[in-house]
Amino acid sequence: MKKVTRGLLLGRMQPVHNGHIQIIEKTLNYVDEVVIGIGSAQLSHELKDPFTAGERIMMLTQALDDYDIDPKRYYIIPIEDINRNALWVAQVKMLTPPFSKVYSGNPLVKRLFKEEGYETYQPELFDREVLSGTEIRYRILNDGDWKSLVPKATIEVIDEIDGVNRIKELSRKEISEK
Amino acid sequence: MKKVTRGLLLGRMQPVHNGHIQIIEKTLNYVDEVVIGIGSAQLSHELKDPFTAGERIMMLTQALDDYDIDPKRYYIIPIEDINRNALWVAQVKMLTPPFSKVYSGNPLVKRLFKEEGYETYQPELFDREVLSGTEIRYRILNDGDWKSLVPKATIEVIDEIDGVNRIKELSRKEISEK
Amino acid sequence: MKKVTRGLLLGRMQPVHNGHIQIIEKTLNYVDEVVIGIGSAQLSHELKDPFTAGERIMMLTQALDDYDIDPKRYYIIPIEDINRNALWVAQVKMLTPPFSKVYSGNPLVKRLFKEEGYETYQPELFDREVLSGTEIRYRILNDGDWKSLVPKATIEVIDEIDGVNRIKELSRKEISEK
Amino acid sequence: MKKVTRGLLLGRMQPVHNGHIQIIEKTLNYVDEVVIGIGSAQLSHELKDPFTAGERIMMLTQALDDYDIDPKRYYIIPIEDINRNALWVAQVKMLTPPFSKVYSGNPLVKRLFKEEGYETYQPELFDREVLSGTEIRYRILNDGDWKSLVPKATIEVIDEIDGVNRIKELSRKEISEK
Amino acid sequence: MKKVTRGLLLGRMQPVHNGHIQIIEKTLNYVDEVVIGIGSAQLSHELKDPFTAGERIMMLTQALDDYDIDPKRYYIIPIEDINRNALWVAQVKMLTPPFSKVYSGNPLVKRLFKEEGYETYQPELFDREVLSGTEIRYRILNDGDWKSLVPKATIEVIDEIDGVNRIKELSRKEISEK
Amino acid sequence: MKKVTRGLLLGRMQPVHNGHIQIIEKTLNYVDEVVIGIGSAQLSHELKDPFTAGERIMMLTQALDDYDIDPKRYYIIPIEDINRNALWVAQVKMLTPPFSKVYSGNPLVKRLFKEEGYETYQPELFDREVLSGTEIRYRILNDGDWKSLVPKATIEVIDEIDGVNRIKELSRKEISEK
Repeated sequence: MKKVTRGLLLGRMQPVHNGHIQIIEKTLNYVDEVVIGIGSAQLSHELKDPFTAGERIMMLTQALDDYDIDPKRYYIIPIEDINRNALWVAQVKMLTPPFSKVYSGNPLVKRLFKEEGYETYQPELFDREVLSGTEIRYRILNDGDWKSLVPKATIEVIDEIDGVNRIKELSRKEISEK
Repeated sequence: MKKVTRGLLLGRMQPVHNGHIQIIEKTLNYVDEVVIGIGSAQLSHELKDPFTAGERIMMLTQALDDYDIDPKRYYIIPIEDINRNALWVAQVKMLTPPFSKVYSGNPLVKRLFKEEGYETYQPELFDREVLSGTEIRYRILNDGDWKSLVPKATIEVIDEIDGVNRIKELSRKEISEK
Repeated sequence: MKKVTRGLLLGRMQPVHNGHIQIIEKTLNYVDEVVIGIGSAQLSHELKDPFTAGERIMMLTQALDDYDIDPKRYYIIPIEDINRNALWVAQVKMLTPPFSKVYSGNPLVKRLFKEEGYETYQPELFDREVLSGTEIRYRILNDGDWKSLVPKATIEVIDEIDGVNRIKELSRKEISEK
Repeated sequence: MKKVTRGLLLGRMQPVHNGHIQIIEKTLNYVDEVVIGIGSAQLSHELKDPFTAGERIMMLTQALDDYDIDPKRYYIIPIEDINRNALWVAQVKMLTPPFSKVYSGNPLVKRLFKEEGYETYQPELFDREVLSGTEIRYRILNDGDWKSLVPKATIEVIDEIDGVNRIKELSRKEISEK
Repeated sequence: MKKVTRGLLLGRMQPVHNGHIQIIEKTLNYVDEVVIGIGSAQLSHELKDPFTAGERIMMLTQALDDYDIDPKRYYIIPIEDINRNALWVAQVKMLTPPFSKVYSGNPLVKRLFKEEGYETYQPELFDREVLSGTEIRYRILNDGDWKSLVPKATIEVIDEIDGVNRIKELSRKEISEK
Repeated sequence: MKKVTRGLLLGRMQPVHNGHIQIIEKTLNYVDEVVIGIGSAQLSHELKDPFTAGERIMMLTQALDDYDIDPKRYYIIPIEDINRNALWVAQVKMLTPPFSKVYSGNPLVKRLFKEEGYETYQPELFDREVLSGTEIRYRILNDGDWKSLVPKATIEVIDEIDGVNRIKELSRKEISEK
């Protein structure tokens, strides 16, 4: 079995956007393969987490294909929350091929892996202010320009699943709690 | 077995109030039987969810009896949260007799059932502003007039379980977190 | 609120059979109301637990109706397993109206309630050998006479959901585990 | 987005063996893409489930690569058990891209998908008797010839993780339970 | 077996501080033994809950030793949340030796135990404003004087596990959610 | 903080018996402190796991006191099962002070800790055949001599909680499953 260096990338990807593609491409300059963990895989149909893991996997697979990234160089793996931080690194390791480097901008992720002895790296990312799930979900909700921030595949999946309406309907406050 | 049309109604019923009775009565004009799901059945003793499922079942059963609603026309079923929205419709179906229509004002409930192919309806309700659990819990906490908003059975159950004090005690902030 | 004596009856009811009806009728000679807990409510589609909670609720509601038992005298409540015996009495109490007597032939149920200070009673039951879920599921699987052991409503629900085939299919061993 | 037909294949793959490769190749004659669900993803280090989901993903990815199967034609997705059969189809759908056909020899899987309206197919498989995880784990434990039944990638992963010893150690009965 | 009176004390102890020691010492004036439950034992690595149960057990054991409190007079027991308030008293009882008195300033804890028939007492505590986990975590984060509020053992454990940095890193907002 | 060597001992201790005391005493010859994990802490009232974690903690604390083992040299910590082997070492570490050696005769425990880089040791134990929980529970059930195999504290706790009858009642098969 060929000896490969693998890097772990983690994100909820709600939805997959250009920043994710950018980071994956850059990370592949440093490692042979990336293990892409799709976090909070059990969540969907919430304003902060509108899409299912299956929908997010479709977005990402198709986008990486559109960007001609070699499918032999990445794994895409949904990861459910375990709700006990001290067990979370073990949960990620259980579900993934072995990796030696962790690329994350999330302070909790970095801290947890560091305490388990991993090297963690801050991924470089241009345009952080707009390339964020929060910003994109806000623009979807408010009919802003979100399409320029995501790959074509994300637009197509959101279209196919009627995702804009899903987000808009979830945002409606009930008049009465009943 | 007689062929019946069943409608699903869902609510946390914290506590059962006149709005619930009103909606159940109206829905029974459109369907043969209503399946009444008592949501977040596992919660109790919180300011937003003070009563146990058992207490809420008592309130509702007794109230429907007082209103002379035929007990053969409804099912009352506690439904625990499953904490993964994509599985929630399956959770409701597992616990209930088959139904074909869903009556709900909750945008998430409506969206989830719509995505599974159900027809969803907005229940009509007068006096939405005051006929709400939030308003009633607020009035209980602040010694306002809550008794006019709920059926007699709700008052009796809350009395029997010392429910006003339960809500008031839960509202007290600790002076120190310790 | 009228002061009533309630007795708790518990069973998985896989499926509802004549023994359950018999015990419910007898228990109603001793208490004002019975709280009927349908146990292992989360299980279905297993050889030992083929029917969903919703299917079992339908069987029982319809059967009690056919036997002209006053619907004001019983509650039917699905109860999910909590998988920690020391918490199970609290789980049952959370989901049910208050009861003071427990009727059960199950040694674990009796022991758990006895340790919490409840009086427990052994329900009387004729024909114990054949009036058992195990026997009925065995007969369904082997085309024996199971219909004489269950109320008409059970037959109707099993028919409606294609329940005989469900049990037969679940019993098939895979040729290869794969 | 191109319209594709997807088929679902499910297996615990403890470990990945030649039968899995055979079935995946055949299924790709009938559908555009296969969604391969690795079941009981949360289990490992048991005699019946010795390998982690991550280890099984590595075996399968590498094996499909060795067999020159186009990586654009399959998804590999770990699926954790939900322990309530009536919710399991929803769990699978949450984690996967949409599929319209289900290929499985497992009676429970077939029944659950059939009840949700899916077409299910029995995968063809030669040599069922030996191409089974049970047989392979038995041979590993007893120093039999297991290597001829699995792809090279399975041998390499088992080697790398010291998998033969893992299985042998797990099989040792404690002399005393202590 | 000698007949002893036991009192229950509960706290998350994030971290153990002088107020906890004070209360334990005072409570030992009224009962023979204290059962000290460390709550939310499954949480760690969060701003509000930075330390693992194991780390909190170390802090407390060492501190009580430094204060010469007889180790035969207390039990230290981690208690995981059960997330259903109506079951929580049973959860505590399952994990602890029998106790007859409950000392707590937490309104929910007091209410839950009172409803189960326990006598509850408000522990006396000087300097409530500063002797609180919230205050101490705030001071750690902001380089304030936290060391005067906690026993030496807490300082040592936090030192050993690099706890100040853990808290500071967890507090960093990500620039982009990614 | 003094630098100590800690060893981990794990057992379900259903019930605490002389073998446990023997092993704890011997292990204390090799390490400064032992961390004693009481496994399957969530189980009780089953034939194989009759006693609650709280009851087992009482047995062990009192027994170690009777044997004059210095309470500063051990921690007793209940550990709930996590039901995913790959996360179990992390679960144990979360709940305990740091330890560097693991003493266990259980092949799964040894394997899991070995894979995480721990040194594991086989505890020496005389009379393994009779000093086992299985043997003791069998003798309790069949009125054999179990008292010679356990410390006085175990006898006292079993007496106090009516434990012999608990075991005997749990063993009774229901005549009818109902």
